[in-house]
Amino acid sequence: MRPLVEIKRNILEKNDLEADRLRDRFNAAGCYVTNWISSPGSGKTALLEETLRELIKRGESAAAIVGDMATALDADRLSRSGAMVKQIETIGCCHLESDMIINVVESWDLSQYNFVFIENVGNLVCPSSYDLGEDERVVCLSVTEGEDKPLKYPSTFMAADTILVTKIDLAAAVEFDRDALLSNIRSVTQQPTLFETSAKRGIGIEAWIDHLIQRRIEKVTPVQV
Amino acid sequence: MRPLVEIKRNILEKNDLEADRLRDRFNAAGCYVTNWISSPGSGKTALLEETLRELIKRGESAAAIVGDMATALDADRLSRSGAMVKQIETIGCCHLESDMIINVVESWDLSQYNFVFIENVGNLVCPSSYDLGEDERVVCLSVTEGEDKPLKYPSTFMAADTILVTKIDLAAAVEFDRDALLSNIRSVTQQPTLFETSAKRGIGIEAWIDHLIQRRIEKVTPVQV
Repeated sequence: MRPLVEIKRNILEKNDLEADRLRDRFNAAGCYVTNWISSPGSGKTALLEETLRELIKRGESAAAIVGDMATALDADRLSRSGAMVKQIETIGCCHLESDMIINVVESWDLSQYNFVFIENVGNLVCPSSYDLGEDERVVCLSVTEGEDKPLKYPSTFMAADTILVTKIDLAAAVEFDRDALLSNIRSVTQQPTLFETSAKRGIGIEAWIDHLIQRRIEKVTPVQV
Repeated sequence: MRPLVEIKRNILEKNDLEADRLRDRFNAAGCYVTNWISSPGSGKTALLEETLRELIKRGESAAAIVGDMATALDADRLSRSGAMVKQIETIGCCHLESDMIINVVESWDLSQYNFVFIENVGNLVCPSSYDLGEDERVVCLSVTEGEDKPLKYPSTFMAADTILVTKIDLAAAVEFDRDALLSNIRSVTQQPTLFETSAKRGIGIEAWIDHLIQRRIEKVTPVQV
């Protein structure tokens, strides 16, 4: 059998090529794309639902692609926001790959959407190796998971453009140590964009939505020379 | 390139053979072995620390093998219990495999330990495919993760012998719906052994320790004919 390292390298190289194709499509259509990674149960679906709802309220158009091992529970939740939502049931695969995303967007007119959100399979390890053609990699971490997670999953946090600390309303109940988390984040990655949020209580949502809208404007505005 | 399905089957078949070798060693030494699987941040290290401490207090001998992507933080925590603890740093691998466990126990005199605990990498997906020669597969799920997890990760919950619901002290703060969780568990697996626990408040620990001790007695007691 061929060494596993080589097999994995081939898979990742193939994915990178497909991610570049995806990025070209997203760029041509003016879509701002985020890829959301977290542990199961970190609250990323709740926060994404809130994000879609707020963007639509502000007149933005948005679509979401949701990866899950099984069930369409998350897609059903996200559809309540009024956004276009498509479920990918990965059936045993622990992460999303670019070809799965291509299969979905092939039948879409991407120019209809200012934003495309990709909610990865709940897994803090494997999804971080797969580029999905996104503009921004978002890692969600709930205050209930423990402040040590950036140290224990450094590759995932190193690859994050933005860290969304979730369930901040539970901070007191779990004796969340904010300084320890920030220090651990800083020890694996320099100056990530960070928002502290609670989808349940609406905390931090406005700043996060402002950030997304601003980033899309920067993306689609031609550079003045 | 050979189809990925075949490559994965070969890896799993090799692991199964090594798991059988491991099981033979554990059986010959009279070790009762549990393999702990959960999401990152579910509180499995805290519960395992409590488990080791209580077993040692009751005069039992125990060792633990801890898998992590990076850092020896968990091994350091578990060592405080007084148990023999060995860290496996998986460096990019998202699960433990039997050959990693064999490498550790090769230098151990297993007959010194009534119990061997294997704490897998925090990941609710990939570790469930890998038999580590255990007697009991333990899946931890914290009340903060949401009641839908058994439906979304059915293969992991179907393969569980025991489900440890953790952080039960936070049930009220997160509006935990116990009936919904039990119903979701029952829809993917029949009559699993279930304990509701809080390592922080010492809830459910005694029943869990009784269960472990009883299971080991059943394992090492010769069947009367």
